This record gives sequence, structure tokens and C-alpha cells, in this order.
Amino acid sequence: MGAPIDFYFDFASPYGYFASLRIDAIAARHGRAVVWRPILLGAVFKVTGMKPNMQQPLRGDYLKHDVHRIARRLGVPFTWPAVMPILGVSASRAYWWLEGRDPAAARRLAGALYHAHWGEGLDISSAEAVTGIAAAQGLDAAEVAASLQDPVVKERLRQETDGAIKRGVFGAPFIIVDGEPFWGSDRLEMVDAWLEAGGW
Amino acid sequence: MGAPIDFYFDFASPYGYFASLRIDAIAARHGRAVVWRPILLGAVFKVTGMKPNMQQPLRGDYLKHDVHRIARRLGVPFTWPAVMPILGVSASRAYWWLEGRDPAAARRLAGALYHAHWGEGLDISSAEAVTGIAAAQGLDAAEVAASLQDPVVKERLRQETDGAIKRGVFGAPFIIVDGEPFWGSDRLEMVDAWLEAGGW
Repeated sequence: MGAPIDFYFDFASPYGYFASLRIDAIAARHGRAVVWRPILLGAVFKVTGMKPNMQQPLRGDYLKHDVHRIARRLGVPFTWPAVMPILGVSASRAYWWLEGRDPAAARRLAGALYHAHWGEGLDISSAEAVTGIAAAQGLDAAEVAASLQDPVVKERLRQETDGAIKRGVFGAPFIIVDGEPFWGSDRLEMVDAWLEAGGW
Repeated sequence: MGAPIDFYFDFASPYGYFASLRIDAIAARHGRAVVWRPILLGAVFKVTGMKPNMQQPLRGDYLKHDVHRIARRLGVPFTWPAVMPILGVSASRAYWWLEGRDPAAARRLAGALYHAHWGEGLDISSAEAVTGIAAAQGLDAAEVAASLQDPVVKERLRQETDGAIKRGVFGAPFIIVDGEPFWGSDRLEMVDAWLEAGGW
């Protein structure tokens, strides 16, 4: 079994949502595990000088059209959120807190958070929203709420985001397979082909 | 036979080069023709506030790695140009001049210009470079050179670029199928699927 694949994403990115629904199955076909790594693209954009796609003239309109088209193609739930972009800080902190205890539960929580935001269109920015979603997953609401203010958890998220930038991550989703970088959910077929061929 | 597909590109874009080698065959599979439309992305970026990918931190390094990987995958000639980004003004004017006389010859010229720049790594910015490549295609060098200063040709290129912006083109390659927009060479599979299914 090869080394795990790194899957960098931001909860605010719809393309990250689409990739999150597919990456595990693609990796599993090739006997690979996936390490899910939520980061904060806002910090990445400070380094690159980029703006969120949605805020770019013309491209924002394209994105809105494109994501509905992709959702129909994949047959997955999709609702354009009333509030956007959300701040993924609380959702990402909850993930990294839980990942240190129970990685499988953290994965399920990430899926639930993504589904709430992009599947149902809910605002998941606030600590209350994240805690509520975590509680529905059977987690202790008070513990989750406390974790969002835990300095160790905060530092972990900072380190993950900094580490991503050091590895060249400039957008999301961003997938690294054996050091090979792939940017964007529309590169999943290339990831699949790369794993199949062992590179080219 | 359905309406022709619009293929917007800039000679300075390696992803446009890759798309140019594939778009006609994809369209032909579905009984479609392709209208090749070189434009100047620089004018588009003035509207969107974007920068060329190569000039963005981190993303520039990714692009350089990525284009070599794609070229290997497709098995097409590829040489990283010493001079880049080139100015596609002369190449685009030559195309639009010839397109008004002989669209098939214009298509061949565009292919030769793309091959010279991205296949062989040559600088095709200058009028002399473009005229030389056109002459090798059997065109009259003096006529081509004159066309590059022809006000009608200059205006045509401006109109094509403005028209692209009006249609929402914010990058290149950009493909429009029956009003449906697709951005990027990594969306060619989606273009193929869209044509196959007649949309979804």
C-alpha cells in the first residue's frame, strides 16, 4: 500500500465539497488512504495576492453557473448558500481537534460540515453552527465549543495552513500524491490516472 | 449538424496550445465545427484585475511543472520558451487577416504559430517571426507584414477580444458550446460529455 494522499481543502470552497465526495473512492481504488487537511485559503491568498474566485469579475458568474452544472452531473445535493464566503475557521478547528482523537470521526464531521454548507446552503461560520452540527454527530457540544478556543487547536490549524503554503498549495482543493501536486476538483481524473500509471 | 463551437485562446497560453491540439477532434465526434478565435488576454485581465498565472506566486511554479506533465501525457511536442509571456498581437492579427480570406489556411497558420511557440519554444512576438512562419506556410511575406498594420485587421482583433469579454470570457482557453461556457483545457472532457449528452 502506497503512502497516503494529502487532500487540502477549505470549507468555503464548493469545488472542495465536490472533491470531498470523490477523493476517498479514487484513492481506495489504488489502495491508498487519504489525509483530509482543512486549511484557510484566506491566509494562502495573503501570500499569493489572489482573490476568492467568486469576487473576480466574470469569473464569479461562471463559478456560480459551473457549480450547479457539476452538482447535476455528479448527482449530489447542492444549494447555493445565502451567506458566502463563510469563514471556515471554526469548522476547521473542530476538525483538527477531533482528528487528534478519532480521525474517522473527524472525517465524518468534515463530511457533515460540507454537506450542511454546500448540500443544504447553511451558514457554518459560527461556533454555534459548528457545535450544533457536531452534536448531531453524537459529539459533546460543550467539548466541541471549548475546542474552538483551545490554543493548541488554533496553533494546529495555523501550522497546517503554513505547511500547505510551504508545499506550494495556492488554491483548493489541492491534492498531493507522492509529492506530485494537483490543483482543482477537475483534476481528479488526472489523479486517478496518475495513481493507475504510477506517474508518467 | 449543430452550431459551431467557439474556441477562444491566446497564443501566449500553453493550455490554449494543448486545447488547440484536441478541440477539432472532439467537436468532429459530435458533428460540430469549431471557430478558432484568438484574443488578447491582457485586455481581458484589465477588466478582471487578474494577473497571468505565471506571475502569481506558487501558481507559477505549479504551472511550469503541470504543462510538462500534460505534454508528456498527451505525447505532444513541448519546449519551455526562453521568452515568455510573448505578445500575441501580431500572431492574432495575422490569423484574423487570413481568416477573412481563407479560414482553413488561417487554422493551419494558427497551428503553426502555436507549434513554433510551445512546441519549439520560439519567440513569436515580433512581426518578423510571424511573417517568417506564415511564409513557411506558403503565404506571401509582404502581404502578411502589411496585414499586421492594417487598421481593419487591428479593429477586428479588438472587436473579437471585446466580444469575448461581453460573453463572459475571463481566461483562456475558453470554449462556448450553444451558449454553455467551459474554461480551461482540463474541461475538454466535460465539453465532450456535454456534446454527447446534449447538456444535463
